[in-house]
Amino acid sequence: MLTKEQISEWFMQLQENICSALETEDGSGKFVEDNWKREGGGGGRTRIIQNGNVIEKGGVLFSAVHGPIPDFLKKDTIPTTSSQQPTTTFYATGVSIVIHPENPMVPIIHMNVRYFEMDNGVWWFGGGIDLTPHYVIEQDAKFFHSALKNACDKHNENYYAEYKKWADDYFFIKHRNETRGVGGIFFDKLNQKQNLTKEQLFEFVKEVGNTFAPTYTKLMNKNKTLPFSEANKQWQLLRRGRYVEFNLIYDLGTKFGLESNGRVESILMSLPKLAAWEYDYSPANDSLEAQTLNFLKKNISWA
Amino acid sequence: MLTKEQISEWFMQLQENICSALETEDGSGKFVEDNWKREGGGGGRTRIIQNGNVIEKGGVLFSAVHGPIPDFLKKDTIPTTSSQQPTTTFYATGVSIVIHPENPMVPIIHMNVRYFEMDNGVWWFGGGIDLTPHYVIEQDAKFFHSALKNACDKHNENYYAEYKKWADDYFFIKHRNETRGVGGIFFDKLNQKQNLTKEQLFEFVKEVGNTFAPTYTKLMNKNKTLPFSEANKQWQLLRRGRYVEFNLIYDLGTKFGLESNGRVESILMSLPKLAAWEYDYSPANDSLEAQTLNFLKKNISWA
Repeated sequence: MLTKEQISEWFMQLQENICSALETEDGSGKFVEDNWKREGGGGGRTRIIQNGNVIEKGGVLFSAVHGPIPDFLKKDTIPTTSSQQPTTTFYATGVSIVIHPENPMVPIIHMNVRYFEMDNGVWWFGGGIDLTPHYVIEQDAKFFHSALKNACDKHNENYYAEYKKWADDYFFIKHRNETRGVGGIFFDKLNQKQNLTKEQLFEFVKEVGNTFAPTYTKLMNKNKTLPFSEANKQWQLLRRGRYVEFNLIYDLGTKFGLESNGRVESILMSLPKLAAWEYDYSPANDSLEAQTLNFLKKNISWA
Repeated sequence: MLTKEQISEWFMQLQENICSALETEDGSGKFVEDNWKREGGGGGRTRIIQNGNVIEKGGVLFSAVHGPIPDFLKKDTIPTTSSQQPTTTFYATGVSIVIHPENPMVPIIHMNVRYFEMDNGVWWFGGGIDLTPHYVIEQDAKFFHSALKNACDKHNENYYAEYKKWADDYFFIKHRNETRGVGGIFFDKLNQKQNLTKEQLFEFVKEVGNTFAPTYTKLMNKNKTLPFSEANKQWQLLRRGRYVEFNLIYDLGTKFGLESNGRVESILMSLPKLAAWEYDYSPANDSLEAQTLNFLKKNISWA
């Protein structure tokens, strides 16, 4: 029987592997590590990379927190069968990543894989990966989505379509009426209701986790030497501004973290080193920037 | 009897006067104007200044919107007396200002004055001014609070203490456990319950509105020529990052605007041209930056 400790252990190893792969591809940046404890129970291992050759600012975070269940979580913990008892404590563990590259031709990426368990036996997995290119390069978006589809298809041929749509809906900046980037996959509350064992669902989550490093390092490698102008940098800062808007207004992980009194510096590592806002900016017709905006829509078939 | 149209008209004139005073003190920046209509009714006059001599990015916004009451507002509209009928339409008008200066020695400022009315006769005034220095200069904070206290004292000797505390509580970045700046005054839902007529409350709101320009232009004038270093600029960008956090996570005006499908570019004019985040940054002991952090607390008696 798969235990929460085994899941946490695998997540820690995933963090290790991803940091190692990112450092290798970056070529100069090194992760620095902060271990922290949570007052209510548990803690985490935050690894941050700054001012690397490719990565300007990024974090690969592991955490495993537990303790009495916070009020705002109680609505999530309604027992799913009548034999289950009300819960009083929770355990949450996962890996979260956001990478902001220096070169505007390299996309921003985010991944999260997580496991949640209550002492009444209710549990679920969640996660997702999404790509936010400052400039959408069709070939890259196709490559990225194909990698995710391959990972999904190994487990269930319906997963990709379902979780791709979920990502389109989740990574959406409502007030701008634009998607955050080219999407990816998103899933939550995967549990025994899916007629799969915990072990089977964990295999899928591991597949997603293992897809991250080879996929993103390939995009880093392909684009890190592309030339860029000051105008490209300015556009990157504006796109990062949108990323900040999404993370502070809509992102549920950020909300969960801040409301559960998580470690602020770990939660907000997702924010870029520098971001810009310009009043009522819109790019020239037919510019690369305008083409990118045209791709920031739901329901594009990339894979 | 004071009408909503008269209130709106005064607010438009206030916008005019403030823009004129800011342009004069800036010396080179000019406001550009965008008139917009709201789909559900009403509209606004947005004035933005960018890349001036003193002001890097700022907005002075007037709006008067009306129409069927949005669902999320209905909880606010419970009739205050049993003789009042349920309401179906609202009218909201006001002036909102945020100014981000170029020189880190000049503080960020925000002001809002507003009037809200429902078709069942329920109405109220709200507003506030608060100052966010990148570097807290005690003399300036005292001058600012004294100006607000003077304005309040002309109307009621309890206002300043009450509304200063309200500002400390409102302009608070909970997850950072720090105030946004040195505070100011904040008040909401001032109505007939205060045993004052609408005319009397409007006189107070006008006093607040009229306090803005002479107070802030004096601070611009005093500090705009102070020298600053690259390190001061970097600190300014970090403080602006906090400003972005407050506005996107906590600010009720931003929330109201985005949820009521307001004009996004007007609502988010409050965001700076450029902002920065640095992982786990803390300033050196006894530095000017550390001294500023020490002032970002509630309950400091400035006036």
